[in-house]
Amino acid sequence: MSNFLPKSVRNLIEELGRLPGIGPKSAQRLAIHLLYSPASRVTPLGEAVLGLKENVMFCGCCWNIAESDPCKICGDGGRDQGIICVVEDVLDVVALEKTSEFKGVYHVLHGSLSPIDGIGPEQLKIAELFARIEKSRAGADVGGDASVPVREVILATNPSLEGEATALYIQKHLREMDVKITRIARGLPVGADLEYADEITLTKALQGRGEF
Amino acid sequence: MSNFLPKSVRNLIEELGRLPGIGPKSAQRLAIHLLYSPASRVTPLGEAVLGLKENVMFCGCCWNIAESDPCKICGDGGRDQGIICVVEDVLDVVALEKTSEFKGVYHVLHGSLSPIDGIGPEQLKIAELFARIEKSRAGADVGGDASVPVREVILATNPSLEGEATALYIQKHLREMDVKITRIARGLPVGADLEYADEITLTKALQGRGEF
Repeated sequence: MSNFLPKSVRNLIEELGRLPGIGPKSAQRLAIHLLYSPASRVTPLGEAVLGLKENVMFCGCCWNIAESDPCKICGDGGRDQGIICVVEDVLDVVALEKTSEFKGVYHVLHGSLSPIDGIGPEQLKIAELFARIEKSRAGADVGGDASVPVREVILATNPSLEGEATALYIQKHLREMDVKITRIARGLPVGADLEYADEITLTKALQGRGEF
Repeated sequence: MSNFLPKSVRNLIEELGRLPGIGPKSAQRLAIHLLYSPASRVTPLGEAVLGLKENVMFCGCCWNIAESDPCKICGDGGRDQGIICVVEDVLDVVALEKTSEFKGVYHVLHGSLSPIDGIGPEQLKIAELFARIEKSRAGADVGGDASVPVREVILATNPSLEGEATALYIQKHLREMDVKITRIARGLPVGADLEYADEITLTKALQGRGEF
């Protein structure tokens, strides 16, 4: 680090460089950009970073980040509490919500099974998922948002090695329960070229073919 | 923006998305990364942003950002005050200092001539450069860091249209003064492939050829 730069600038470059996907050059460029920006642009960013965790909690039902417990989605009477879409993380909920296609509720696992990284079922919100389903099916006497029994669990973990393993693990444990278990379709993304698709994707696309 | 996310998170995503080179997806990813990070990592970043402009000033001699006036480089008795390297911005100084090759001093223009963007000589620190050189050559009686007359001005603006125009403008105005004016070499970057070089770079590489 060039030590002729003011300490506060070097400090920001160092902190920005710690963020994922931001290398030393990007960190420098961002810091200098902020230095040339008026305070009216810099202060809100700094305050947004410091205030990030204010009023943020986990929804005790779906484990998504939220401002209230239950969260807006779980507390929304217009959504079907009988269909749970299981995802790996918060940004997956953001992506799915953008489609406006799904009217059920979510369950955020906060990761995927990865023994190499020491992530087993205990590190994820898997036990909470099972408990949630069981509770909902125990009867409507518990009241609240759990009064609708869960009919379907959509496994929407990533189509990666870890995501598939996580989906498989959950599916195995839910098998004895009388609940429909589905997996999001794997196939060619819209706009893709068949010629460039890998074998596994093509295999999945063939296996998952539907009536035209 | 998914309005089920807590306000503080949406707020940070919005602020991060305003930074150059950070799109909406990157902003989301960074915000969620910070949300999962411990406060001991988040707070220093927020404070670094807010404290960025503290104790930062421009050096009245070279116009680089600094903590003192004159800055560390201008005030360094071990550096040759007779050679000024003229650059467009602060990061150019960072890049040149990394080479440890240059032992003179700098002059930061804070931009390059670009009539389309309304940037003329008045918007840059060009008059300050001329005044600095004149003052240094007016005699050693002024004292301080201006006591060494400037012998050489290295024009190290970018080899772009704007950078070349800026270099040309400065060169024209310095011509009548008895000062050596040089331009950084333009040619093939180390590791490049001649086959893929553009015509202008190759022309410059040929014109600037040296004895082997």
